[in-house]
Amino acid sequence: MRWQFIASIIGILLVFLGFSMIAPLLVSLHYHDLARNSFLQSMGITMVAGLILIILSKKRGSENYINQKEGMTTVALAWAAIGLFGALPFYLNPEFTSFTDAFFESVSGFTTTGSSVMTNIDGAGKSLLFWRSFIQWLGGMGIIVLSLAILPFLGVGGIQLYKAEVPSPVPDKLTPRLSDSAKILWVLYAVFTLLEIIFLLGGGMPLFEATCHAFTTLPTGGFSPKNASIAHYNSAYFDYVIVLFMVIAGINFSLHYQMLRGKTLAFWEDTECRFFLGLTLVLTLVMTWDIYGTVYTSLKDAFRFASFQVVSIITTTGFATADYEKFPGLSQIILFVSMFIGASAGSTGGGMKCARIIAGYKYCYRELFKIVHPRSISHVKINNTVIPDEVLRSIMGFLALYMGIYILSSILLAGMGVDMMTAFGAVAACLGNIGPGFGTVGPADNFAHLPVMGKWLLAWCMLLGRLEIYTVIILFVPEFWKK
Amino acid sequence: MRWQFIASIIGILLVFLGFSMIAPLLVSLHYHDLARNSFLQSMGITMVAGLILIILSKKRGSENYINQKEGMTTVALAWAAIGLFGALPFYLNPEFTSFTDAFFESVSGFTTTGSSVMTNIDGAGKSLLFWRSFIQWLGGMGIIVLSLAILPFLGVGGIQLYKAEVPSPVPDKLTPRLSDSAKILWVLYAVFTLLEIIFLLGGGMPLFEATCHAFTTLPTGGFSPKNASIAHYNSAYFDYVIVLFMVIAGINFSLHYQMLRGKTLAFWEDTECRFFLGLTLVLTLVMTWDIYGTVYTSLKDAFRFASFQVVSIITTTGFATADYEKFPGLSQIILFVSMFIGASAGSTGGGMKCARIIAGYKYCYRELFKIVHPRSISHVKINNTVIPDEVLRSIMGFLALYMGIYILSSILLAGMGVDMMTAFGAVAACLGNIGPGFGTVGPADNFAHLPVMGKWLLAWCMLLGRLEIYTVIILFVPEFWKK
Repeated sequence: MRWQFIASIIGILLVFLGFSMIAPLLVSLHYHDLARNSFLQSMGITMVAGLILIILSKKRGSENYINQKEGMTTVALAWAAIGLFGALPFYLNPEFTSFTDAFFESVSGFTTTGSSVMTNIDGAGKSLLFWRSFIQWLGGMGIIVLSLAILPFLGVGGIQLYKAEVPSPVPDKLTPRLSDSAKILWVLYAVFTLLEIIFLLGGGMPLFEATCHAFTTLPTGGFSPKNASIAHYNSAYFDYVIVLFMVIAGINFSLHYQMLRGKTLAFWEDTECRFFLGLTLVLTLVMTWDIYGTVYTSLKDAFRFASFQVVSIITTTGFATADYEKFPGLSQIILFVSMFIGASAGSTGGGMKCARIIAGYKYCYRELFKIVHPRSISHVKINNTVIPDEVLRSIMGFLALYMGIYILSSILLAGMGVDMMTAFGAVAACLGNIGPGFGTVGPADNFAHLPVMGKWLLAWCMLLGRLEIYTVIILFVPEFWKK
Repeated sequence: MRWQFIASIIGILLVFLGFSMIAPLLVSLHYHDLARNSFLQSMGITMVAGLILIILSKKRGSENYINQKEGMTTVALAWAAIGLFGALPFYLNPEFTSFTDAFFESVSGFTTTGSSVMTNIDGAGKSLLFWRSFIQWLGGMGIIVLSLAILPFLGVGGIQLYKAEVPSPVPDKLTPRLSDSAKILWVLYAVFTLLEIIFLLGGGMPLFEATCHAFTTLPTGGFSPKNASIAHYNSAYFDYVIVLFMVIAGINFSLHYQMLRGKTLAFWEDTECRFFLGLTLVLTLVMTWDIYGTVYTSLKDAFRFASFQVVSIITTTGFATADYEKFPGLSQIILFVSMFIGASAGSTGGGMKCARIIAGYKYCYRELFKIVHPRSISHVKINNTVIPDEVLRSIMGFLALYMGIYILSSILLAGMGVDMMTAFGAVAACLGNIGPGFGTVGPADNFAHLPVMGKWLLAWCMLLGRLEIYTVIILFVPEFWKK
C-alpha cells in the first residue's frame, strides 16, 4: 500500500472540496447572511489540509497506476475525509452545537441519505441550506467521478477509484475512456438538474428553493430547505414534477445515455429498468387502494400521495409530502420493504438495488430447479446475458452482508437506549441512504434526539451504504493488510 | 409421480394418527371430561379416511422405492393431511367455533410452533389440552420419522421421506440403518421427556401439567395448559428446569447420541453447538444487563427472566414467563433477531438454524477474502469439514428464500388489515415455529383476533418453516411437474 500516493489523491480531493465551497460563499454574499466567515474559514482549513497532504507526499506523485486495494482504500478514506471537512461549514454555524451533529449532517449530505439533525430548517441561513443541498448534488454522481471528469491527470489508472465509488453489480462502460464516461454522466446529471429547476420555476417555486430541491432530487438525496419538505407547498404540480425527476434519478444513467443516442426502447429492453418501473407502479397502485378511503377521501389525492411516497422511498430520495407513519399497516410495510430494495444499479439511488434483488430471486429459483434436475447446468441470465458465477456469488454475499450489517447495527443502536422500531427504521434509512425512517425518526421527525454514539453509528452506516459495503468493510478484513 | 403409492403412504400415516388419538381419549376417560365423543369421532373419521386411501391404492403397494420427488411430495401432502385431520378434535370441541381456528391450532401444534387462538386455556377440558401438547410431541421429532421407527415396512426407501421431513443442512447419519437411526432419535427424545416430567414433578408440579409441559418442551413447541404459560407458577425452579430442557432440545440430537456413547467433548467439538450455546449465553448476559434496573430490581431475577426468554425464543419453543414487549428496545430486538436464528440443525427447533447462519457468515467472509485474493481457491469449512459448493449454494438459497417468504407473507398479512409490527412479528413467529410474536400477538396476547385469511396464511408459514421451505415450495415450481 503506497500511503503517500493515497494521501496525495485525498489531498487533491480536499483542495477540490475547498474550491466547491465557493458556491455557498457566493450564496452567502448574495443574501448577506451571517455564514460568510464560516465558509471562508472552512475553505481555508480544507484547502490547507489538502495542500499539506499533497506536499508531504509529493515525491510519490510520479507513479500513477492504482491497484484495486489502493483504489478501495483511497475511496473509503477519501469519503471519510470529505465527510469530516464537509462538516466544517455546519460546525462553524451557530445552528449546530456539536461536531457530531455537523458530521452527521455532512455525511448524510454527501452520501445522499438526507437524514437530518436540524430542528429549525426554515430559520437557518440560506447559504447553509444551499451547502446542505449542494453536497448531496456532489455526492450523488460521485465526487471522485466528478474529479475524474475534470482532472484528467487522475484518469490514468483511475478506473479502480471509479469502480470503488460506483460499485455496480452489472458494470456498464459508456465509453472506452474513463474520463469521457465520467464527463457524460456528469453532463447528463447536470442537464436533468437544470430541467428540474426550470420545471419548478415554471410552477412558481422561488429560484433558491427550486435549485435546492433539484440539487437534492437528482442525487436521490432528499434534503429540503423547508421543515415540512415538499409538503410545504401542497401542490400537485410540484409533487408530480419531483416524482418524475426522482424516477429519472432512479434509472441507470447508462440507459438515459442510450436513449439520447437514439435507442428509444432502452428502458423497456432492460430487465432491471422494467422491474424498477413495474414494481414502482404496482406498489403505487396497492398503496393508493390502501389509503383511499382510510386516509384520503379522493382517489386523485390517494394516487398523488401514494405515488410520491413510494417513489420517494424506493428511489431512496426521502422527500415527504405525508407522514406515512399514519398510513395503514400495508402502506407502511410497503415503504419499509422498499427501503431495502432501492433503485437501479448505475443510478444515484441507494438500497440493495433492483438488479441484486432480481439476481437473488433467480438464484433461489435456480436452487429449486436444481432439486428437480440435480445434474443440470443452469445459468442465471439478466438481459439475456449470463451472470458469471463469481458475480452471482458476490451478489449473494452482498445481500447477506447488507442484512447482517443491518441487524448488527440495529442491535447496537437499540443498545444505546433507542426503541426497537426506531432502531430498525433509522438503520434501514441510513444504510439505504434514504432519509426518514420509522418510529421516532419518521418523516415528521428528525434525527436530532438520537444519542451521540448512535449518530456516529448511523453516519458509518451511510458510508457503508453509499460505497455499497465492500469498499468500506474490506478495510476491516485482516487479510487485506497482510503482504 | 406414482400418486397411488403416495396416497397409500399418507393413508398409513392417517391410520397411525387415528391410533394416536387413543392417548387423549384415555385422558378424557380418566378425567371424565366431555370430549370423549369428539375424540372417538375424530379417530373414526381419520382412520376411515386412511383406510380408504390404502384400499384405493392397494395395487401399487408392492413397489417400495421412493425417489426424491415422490418423497418431498409425500411429506408435504402428509403434513397437510395430518394438520387437517389433527384439527378434528379441536373442531368437534365447543371451545372452537370455526374450522379455521381448529386447523390453525392443529398446524401450530404439529409444526411445534405454539401460536394459539385459544382465549380461555385454563377453562378448557384436560383431554383437549393434552391433545394440544401431544401433537407437538409427535410433530417435534417428526411423525414420519416415528412411523419409520415403528413401521419397518416403510423403511425400504424411506430415506427420502426422512430427508424431506428432517432436512438438515449438515446431514448426520447415526447408524447405517435408517430405522435404527429413527429409533435412537425417538428413544432419546422419549427419555429426555420422561426426565423432564420427573424434574417437574419433583418441584411439585401436578402430573398432568408436568406431562403437558414436557411434551411441549422437547419438541420446542411451547403450548402450555395454562393461560399464563410458565409464568403461572412463578417458580425459579421450574424456570431453570425448563430452560435446561429447552437447551437440550435445541442441540443436535446426534450430539446427544455421541455424548451417551462416551464422546464427552461432543458439544464442545461441534462448531454449531459451540455457537448455539455461546450465543445463547451472550444474549442472556446482554439482556440481563438491559433489564436489570429497568424491569427487575434484583440481578438474580434479571438473569432468571433473561435466560428464560432468550432460551425460549432462540430454541423456538415460545414459553413465556414475562411480557417481553414491555422490555427495553435492546431486549426486544435481541428476541426479534433470535426468532430468525433458531436452534441447531438436527434439533427439534425451528428458525434458520445456527449451522446456516455460520455458513452464511463464512460465505460472506470468503467473498471478502476473494476481493483480496481473487485467484485463490478457498473452501468454507465447518467442523474441519469442507462444505461442498453446492451445499453452500443451497444454504444461501435457503436464507434468501426464507427472507423472501418472510417479507412477502408480512406484506400479505398487512394487506389483510394487520398493523406493521404485528404482521412482522406474527410471520416471524410462525415461519420460525416459535409461538408468540410482537405487536398484538405478543406473549401476553394470542392469535385469535387475526383475520381468517391471515390464519390460513400463517398456518402455511408454519408448514414452510417446519419442513424447511424447500420440501413445500418445490411443489409450486412448474419444472417439478414436467416429465
